[in-house]
Amino acid sequence: MKAEIVAVGTELLLGDIVNGNAAWLGRELADVGVDVDMTVAVGDNIGRIAAAVGAACERADVVLVTGGLGPTQDDLTREALAELVGVPLIRDPELEAALLRRYEAAGRTDFPANNLRMAERPEGATALPNPAGTAPGLRIEFGPRGAVVYAMPGVPREMHEIFDRWVRPELTQRAGPGTTLLSRVLRTVGIWESEVARALADLDRELEASRNPTIAYLASEGQTRVRITAKAVDAATAREQIAAVERRARAALGDVVYGVDDDRLEGVVHRLLLDASATIATAESLTGGLLGAALSATPGSSSTYRGGAVLYATETKSDVVGVAPALLAERGPIDPDVAVAMADGARLTFGATYGIATTGVAGPAEQDGKPVGTVYVALVGPDGAAAGTVQAFRFSGDRDGIRRATVLTALDIVRRRIGGLPPR
Amino acid sequence: MKAEIVAVGTELLLGDIVNGNAAWLGRELADVGVDVDMTVAVGDNIGRIAAAVGAACERADVVLVTGGLGPTQDDLTREALAELVGVPLIRDPELEAALLRRYEAAGRTDFPANNLRMAERPEGATALPNPAGTAPGLRIEFGPRGAVVYAMPGVPREMHEIFDRWVRPELTQRAGPGTTLLSRVLRTVGIWESEVARALADLDRELEASRNPTIAYLASEGQTRVRITAKAVDAATAREQIAAVERRARAALGDVVYGVDDDRLEGVVHRLLLDASATIATAESLTGGLLGAALSATPGSSSTYRGGAVLYATETKSDVVGVAPALLAERGPIDPDVAVAMADGARLTFGATYGIATTGVAGPAEQDGKPVGTVYVALVGPDGAAAGTVQAFRFSGDRDGIRRATVLTALDIVRRRIGGLPPR
Repeated sequence: MKAEIVAVGTELLLGDIVNGNAAWLGRELADVGVDVDMTVAVGDNIGRIAAAVGAACERADVVLVTGGLGPTQDDLTREALAELVGVPLIRDPELEAALLRRYEAAGRTDFPANNLRMAERPEGATALPNPAGTAPGLRIEFGPRGAVVYAMPGVPREMHEIFDRWVRPELTQRAGPGTTLLSRVLRTVGIWESEVARALADLDRELEASRNPTIAYLASEGQTRVRITAKAVDAATAREQIAAVERRARAALGDVVYGVDDDRLEGVVHRLLLDASATIATAESLTGGLLGAALSATPGSSSTYRGGAVLYATETKSDVVGVAPALLAERGPIDPDVAVAMADGARLTFGATYGIATTGVAGPAEQDGKPVGTVYVALVGPDGAAAGTVQAFRFSGDRDGIRRATVLTALDIVRRRIGGLPPR
Repeated sequence: MKAEIVAVGTELLLGDIVNGNAAWLGRELADVGVDVDMTVAVGDNIGRIAAAVGAACERADVVLVTGGLGPTQDDLTREALAELVGVPLIRDPELEAALLRRYEAAGRTDFPANNLRMAERPEGATALPNPAGTAPGLRIEFGPRGAVVYAMPGVPREMHEIFDRWVRPELTQRAGPGTTLLSRVLRTVGIWESEVARALADLDRELEASRNPTIAYLASEGQTRVRITAKAVDAATAREQIAAVERRARAALGDVVYGVDDDRLEGVVHRLLLDASATIATAESLTGGLLGAALSATPGSSSTYRGGAVLYATETKSDVVGVAPALLAERGPIDPDVAVAMADGARLTFGATYGIATTGVAGPAEQDGKPVGTVYVALVGPDGAAAGTVQAFRFSGDRDGIRRATVLTALDIVRRRIGGLPPR
């Protein structure tokens, strides 16, 4: 079963809002085993909406339309569907009564006449009651393939409710047995997308013939995700197929895989610390608090993150966590030994098992003769500064990118240390 | 001039990522006066990419393609464009040399053969060098209307750079005289979108007739932007039209307007502190470092942000910045007086003119009997804790949303204090 999505709204084309509805529907449709071949966004224009839905009906079995069902003059999906199918718009007395009841229940007497537009439907269309709002959805069949068009309001919560109550059950029934599609995502850190692809090249080639399971690479924010998708007669078989591919992918990728699906690197670090009954403190220079924000992002992180210091002005490195002033004066703040002293100082000041520190040049200008992107990350554990480790990096990108890369790297250094993995 | 956008990537159809690139391009194209009629998302499939780009070329003057230009086997935009236009893919020696140089500059010797795919281009296409990454963009003309196709990588930052450097100037030039479209954005903080709309209702009604200039409201991340757009024969006239509307909008909105266009609230705060020759320090509990990250985000902020403490574990509030243990024991960490003591402690510990502190409940669970969303923000200046101010808030949303709302509010409190405005 093939689906297409048509999102309606000039605000989407102008970029005033992001098309989150299409992404949500994409996930839901994948879950019930329906392939989405194309997503289209069009403006509030009867002709263009009708053309987009009509074209989708020629290619797909199911067309999901979102938006354009509200009460205002620029809500034109009802008109467009009527024009496409070649039927009149009629006012549905049941819908009208339901609208009025809803208004009265809310204690409102100023029923705007415009709102009666939401009681209209193309002749032959079925209304899909909206449990979360006023505008009902619509269901109508059209085109040579007998495509089913489901139109839903663009307000995300209303769309979700109508999809869950009316659309998903019908799609699941139509898809029948034999079309379960399942995905699993392996999350990696500290490895480029091209290196991930090279590590999985053999596996990729083998899967090329059957195209089931498939693997895909998604890179963003310094992390590469590997998505394994299997199509099978039932969920158990799909899971087995995914597990076989996952085993081989993990063997090829090794310890750069830090988690699966919705795991976050900071969440994995939190769990590792929790399992080790350990805590951590931060001393940040160029990251300015971003590392602390990451370590405190996971619910419950107060049991593993003690706190930390943002040591932005150079002398605060001495004043607040006790970096030796002579060392600072001799080397300046961007220095590996200063990083170790910062980490150890944070560990002691905040009473944590581990201290982690970042110092470097986020840019845009070089500092102390050190080029933009120079970064040191130090980690000190219970054995103190003498046993501490420090790694040097040279990141590229703008100020924001260098700060983010530093946070990701620092989290990965903690993950490797607490998880008993070798440094990268 | 009409444009269409084709976003490439199975991850878009599966809903693994939201199509933020289409929204970004929509905004940029609106700014240069190009109408976007349709946005399409297709999967990683040569035939479907070629069909989507080909169909767009029949309707539009400009087709912007994002994604599918990376090094992996599922990056297929190059192949699709070659197939559509009916030309071979050739390897460009200059692109190859540039790629190798980039690798060497990063100190890497293990150049993956796959990466050479990024040195390929359809015969007749022009490469658009990528200032922010490895994969170049492509420019090629196609179809009965001579549509210009610009293909750009899907990584947002790389797409932005290539658009700014190569695409925008050409579009602006093609749009020609007589169609200068200029926009100016007023940025507000601490006011709901509906309140902004109500404040500007009269102005909005007056502009309804001419539709020039237009005003639009864009709400995101707790800020509402007001975009004024004028279309005129030349830039000077458009600027005059905008200035007249801006004066009225500012009069109606008052001091919630903190900046224009690309201004960031943290940048405005940095400038205010700089002008006042003042510095600031932070003491953060629920925000975990996000406030420090904001205050250190602007280049040059080391002259106004001294640093701060993330006081996540309760006892660190005493140990590190000297909050009286008796006060903490009596009231617990989520308390207005504790917030003031934290702010003053940070101010003294970090040697700053001002100290700002956040404490509260980010959730998901309540804490010390205080409901999720309870937040206190305290600001202490040179006159010390006794003259400090503290404000209580009750934010809604999830953990991340409450933390972000707190940061925004804290920055606005500093803006108002240093800028001599009344508290909100």
